[in-house]
Amino acid sequence: MKIYSVLLLWIVVAFLPAQQPHQNIAVQLKDNGLKDGEAYAMLVDLTTTVGNRLSGSLGYDKAVKWAQRQLMRCGVDTVWLEPVTIPHWTRGNIEKAEIISKRNKRPISICALGGSVATAADGITARVIEVHSLEEVRSLGALAKGKIVFYNRPFDNTIVNTFEAYGKAVDQRGRGAVEAAQVGAIGVLVRSMTNAIDRNPHTGAMRVYDSIPKIPAAAISTVDAEVLSAALKNDASLVVHMTLNCKTMPDVPSYNVIGEIRGKEFPDEIVLIGAHLDSWDKGTGAHDDGSGVVQCIDALRLIKKLQIPPKRTIRCVLFANEENGIRGAKTYAANINNSLKRHIAAIESDEGGFTPRGFGVTSDSAALKKLGQYSEILDVVNAGNFDHGGGGADIEQITTPGTVFIGLRPDNQRYFDYHHSDLDTIDKVHPRELQLGCIAMAILTWCISQDGF
Amino acid sequence: MKIYSVLLLWIVVAFLPAQQPHQNIAVQLKDNGLKDGEAYAMLVDLTTTVGNRLSGSLGYDKAVKWAQRQLMRCGVDTVWLEPVTIPHWTRGNIEKAEIISKRNKRPISICALGGSVATAADGITARVIEVHSLEEVRSLGALAKGKIVFYNRPFDNTIVNTFEAYGKAVDQRGRGAVEAAQVGAIGVLVRSMTNAIDRNPHTGAMRVYDSIPKIPAAAISTVDAEVLSAALKNDASLVVHMTLNCKTMPDVPSYNVIGEIRGKEFPDEIVLIGAHLDSWDKGTGAHDDGSGVVQCIDALRLIKKLQIPPKRTIRCVLFANEENGIRGAKTYAANINNSLKRHIAAIESDEGGFTPRGFGVTSDSAALKKLGQYSEILDVVNAGNFDHGGGGADIEQITTPGTVFIGLRPDNQRYFDYHHSDLDTIDKVHPRELQLGCIAMAILTWCISQDGF
Repeated sequence: MKIYSVLLLWIVVAFLPAQQPHQNIAVQLKDNGLKDGEAYAMLVDLTTTVGNRLSGSLGYDKAVKWAQRQLMRCGVDTVWLEPVTIPHWTRGNIEKAEIISKRNKRPISICALGGSVATAADGITARVIEVHSLEEVRSLGALAKGKIVFYNRPFDNTIVNTFEAYGKAVDQRGRGAVEAAQVGAIGVLVRSMTNAIDRNPHTGAMRVYDSIPKIPAAAISTVDAEVLSAALKNDASLVVHMTLNCKTMPDVPSYNVIGEIRGKEFPDEIVLIGAHLDSWDKGTGAHDDGSGVVQCIDALRLIKKLQIPPKRTIRCVLFANEENGIRGAKTYAANINNSLKRHIAAIESDEGGFTPRGFGVTSDSAALKKLGQYSEILDVVNAGNFDHGGGGADIEQITTPGTVFIGLRPDNQRYFDYHHSDLDTIDKVHPRELQLGCIAMAILTWCISQDGF
Repeated sequence: MKIYSVLLLWIVVAFLPAQQPHQNIAVQLKDNGLKDGEAYAMLVDLTTTVGNRLSGSLGYDKAVKWAQRQLMRCGVDTVWLEPVTIPHWTRGNIEKAEIISKRNKRPISICALGGSVATAADGITARVIEVHSLEEVRSLGALAKGKIVFYNRPFDNTIVNTFEAYGKAVDQRGRGAVEAAQVGAIGVLVRSMTNAIDRNPHTGAMRVYDSIPKIPAAAISTVDAEVLSAALKNDASLVVHMTLNCKTMPDVPSYNVIGEIRGKEFPDEIVLIGAHLDSWDKGTGAHDDGSGVVQCIDALRLIKKLQIPPKRTIRCVLFANEENGIRGAKTYAANINNSLKRHIAAIESDEGGFTPRGFGVTSDSAALKKLGQYSEILDVVNAGNFDHGGGGADIEQITTPGTVFIGLRPDNQRYFDYHHSDLDTIDKVHPRELQLGCIAMAILTWCISQDGF
């Protein structure tokens, strides 16, 4: 008991001088953020005046200008554009399908997966084979020839963390088409990646290789996946007629958008705070990842408003092309390989604008332990949980040694209801939940910029 | 370092035998709950076939029968009704108001506060005096005579916990009318108790005393509160015309609904799990407190499904009349005073059906420490935070010594957007968020029923 008390005292004493100023700053960031935060208003603007912003689209061009303007407006020291060559895939204006059985015709709700080729102009019509894994497809052999392969393994609803459930199902979307093509299938339908049971299809990226035949691939809504599965049990000889006119166009030049507040003592040590500026072309990318974008920008604005120059440089990077290529992050990572500046930490927000619960960290355990010291400070917005594992698809492209990868972890129960679909719009975002995530990012960014690693 | 390791080992060893079975049960409750949980389906049924259920209304009678049926269906050992005499206040069918200024007439969105008297049939028309606290009203003296007092102190948005913000504003609703009446006002308008800025008025209880003149009192939507405040700055001589025909009827006999699973080893030690069955007459009480009701019932069902009799008795109490009188809980508490059975803990869910984060505890620190041992187990649904303070308006009526009061703590950012208003309907409840709260309740109830206090 005595040892315990001494230990406790030591912790308190060792901690006090470092923590108290952070605590005060955290309260300031929280108060200013909740009183005069601009994250939600910015997100309304981004999702209504810019709208969706798939790589290569006019929307993405507008988003680059929008982001540049917002970063300048919040008073950072420098704003610049980093050139990136990005893909340009277009959905087209036809994506429809129907089940044609002995008894009747029923329309089903689908949308093309990103990167899919079109069908013939009058569509494809084929029998359907339902599967639940890539392995099952590989074992089909000749059975799949000329057919549409229908991937129908649902999210495991017993998994509390919906990102984990997504991770365990998404191979069907990512590799479903290439696996099916290799056994001679002529098309693919993939059950939408969501816990929700509704008629809303969810798009997303898929692998495409020049060496493997390209076949049309679409997501099917979860309700229609259930309908199709039941219909197949009644009539295995039914066919699906499916038409898509999506298209891959030549790559186009574009940009990452970057802004920074220069560090006063260690300007060459960088704390990166990032999100992706592009979105899918369904909905308006309100949660994915408009939320992350406005959280990063408003975090910078809140830090700037403190009127205390940070010791280290805080750099906001809004990445191009996370959704279908990660070219923005790859370019950024390649460019900093030649830099003398050191990225000590990178913090990403790309899990939606919901109430924050903490951060996931990919680094050695010393870094996790050091970050754990900020738990109490972050509890000012109830976001003090640090867990091992996490970061984000963009920041994790960074390969320079010694960068600690940190991902904001919001509550995620609702995320996949909207993700990559027409439902990902501003009305699904709660102003305070969004702003609390922004404040958590600002507080952690501030602490690291002062203390380093 | 060595001491630390030994300590750690000791903790692990001392803990293992007690915790491991709980851990297994927690996983079962989680898996069954997330796969086959019935909380959401029950809440759809309650809010659509019963609807709202204010004390004394036909809706409350229907809710009693509904709850009795649901408890019997989930296979508990006994279900019974406990007689309670409850108030009967009716909103009537007229609640309207308008601002009449030199320039124009503008309708404002209001609703009567529970317990308010009616205006004259053709309404009241009076000048308005805006205030921000009860103290300010007390100091008005003759200035308030013949006027409508308009309470317009908003929620403090810098407070992260919205229940705390509510607690700091709700005196205006609770005591606004009695304070205004005592300085001669003839009516009261109270800014709705919410962070949201919209045209949706929020009702709620207010104090009424026979010794103080009763004056009509209504909640005004936050948008209209802003409008009225701005209008008063332009034209202090404007009047508001307001008509209400609400009415207090004689008390009626009704019931608390109770079901229990008898304990196998200590049947006379009771772990109470509770929520309130009544709701306001606006919306359908989906979050307040339909969520708590279905969480309690489904928690019992999940525990029953384990097919392991708990050591102690688990009793679900669905209280009458929380909203405007707490008569159900008062009656329950009075009745158990004569019982030989001992309530060792009471767990309430009345903060909405959002993602659970943990529990608030009102007890001595030994109980809080003991509960803290369940943190890791509850983290199976990320609900392992135990904080001091909390419980609930119903369970806290219990006065028998030694009861630990525990309140489920869900995320609360959205709660007051809907609370006591037309917006509190089933579409605001997320099936998984609701069910996770239920599972957290079931796990904690199980642990306490096995280990006691």
